[in-house]
Amino acid sequence: MRISELSRESGIPLPTIKYYLREGLLPAGEPTARNQAAYHEGHLARLRLIRALTSVGKLDLGTIGELLAAAEDESMPMPALHEAVSESVCRFGPCAADADAEVGADVVRDLLAEFGWTVTPSSPSLRMLSRTVSVMRQLGCDADVSFFRPYAAEATRAAAAEAALPAPGSVISERMSAVARSILLDAVVLSLRRMAQESCAATPVPAGEALHPVGVSEA
Amino acid sequence: MRISELSRESGIPLPTIKYYLREGLLPAGEPTARNQAAYHEGHLARLRLIRALTSVGKLDLGTIGELLAAAEDESMPMPALHEAVSESVCRFGPCAADADAEVGADVVRDLLAEFGWTVTPSSPSLRMLSRTVSVMRQLGCDADVSFFRPYAAEATRAAAAEAALPAPGSVISERMSAVARSILLDAVVLSLRRMAQESCAATPVPAGEALHPVGVSEA
Repeated sequence: MRISELSRESGIPLPTIKYYLREGLLPAGEPTARNQAAYHEGHLARLRLIRALTSVGKLDLGTIGELLAAAEDESMPMPALHEAVSESVCRFGPCAADADAEVGADVVRDLLAEFGWTVTPSSPSLRMLSRTVSVMRQLGCDADVSFFRPYAAEATRAAAAEAALPAPGSVISERMSAVARSILLDAVVLSLRRMAQESCAATPVPAGEALHPVGVSEA
Repeated sequence: MRISELSRESGIPLPTIKYYLREGLLPAGEPTARNQAAYHEGHLARLRLIRALTSVGKLDLGTIGELLAAAEDESMPMPALHEAVSESVCRFGPCAADADAEVGADVVRDLLAEFGWTVTPSSPSLRMLSRTVSVMRQLGCDADVSFFRPYAAEATRAAAAEAALPAPGSVISERMSAVARSILLDAVVLSLRRMAQESCAATPVPAGEALHPVGVSEA
């Protein structure tokens, strides 16, 4: 298809597509004539992916470019690709230096040991968790490791379930869709957290029941 | 304490504190002399809270001001306060109009019915979930409601556990710490998701086991 059709199909304005082409976010089309090129389904899928990462993932185009390059670099092992996702997602706003990561390091160490997770020590995910725990403690919220355990168990379940999701069967590569899935499901998790919190505030659970997972009752 | 001590104690530069005072994010101190005021533990706690919401929550100061005002407005019921949190967190980047919320509305409807959640129909959390599901479908990832169910179950568990966390026992009000907790635990959840994904990619779980939650095996 021509670039005008690509724009119509994707709903993305022509100047934006041209900008993505110039920035290398979208690969060039196949030249057909002077100043003309043909685009195919792969370009359309790639445009949708970029849109998903900007609108839902709220990532900037520079970060998206790095993530797409990492996904395309087949020589990069999957754990390193996931670490690249962490690098993009586990970012702090300004003033993060206030949080001393050492203060929350015990929670990270305990969860890693308990769940037997294999995570590169330099991964931004570890730093983000320990800093966040540190900030929680600064605010006087001293949740211990038993509080975090169910969150870690669910993260383990979800990671396995997400990895087992069937490939989209589209022109998006398996690696590319692993990246997109990981980031889109963050938004799913956050919106479900909000829904449950709003509902819980509307119909509070008696304190004694709060610690049991849904669907589990004492016999 | 004087404003210079407040700055030293909090590690926040004096000009920043003065800016927060001008913007009304930090309440004025008690006037002691011309151009002097006394600040107390409440101011220090408030500064830490603002820092937590900027660094970990990555919220802008305008949004933080709105959230703090909502938390202080005791006449606002708790569900409305949580909806204000949703309003701040469930935001999309540019181009979100591409995602037709109607396309993912079935997942939202099914989960609301199944979990019996009470959520205001106008809540941004509902819109965010349906839009995200819509974007996933656009990308060819057509997860059905059974895929989302365990995420919703965990959100229910977490909301109850978070609501049951003991009050920090500090000068931060219960409402204020509910807001901070909700947002800080988003960062906990996201970093744990990354850790589990990195680990899962390093040591993939056989596909047949992927659907069972951790610790549960068939007898």
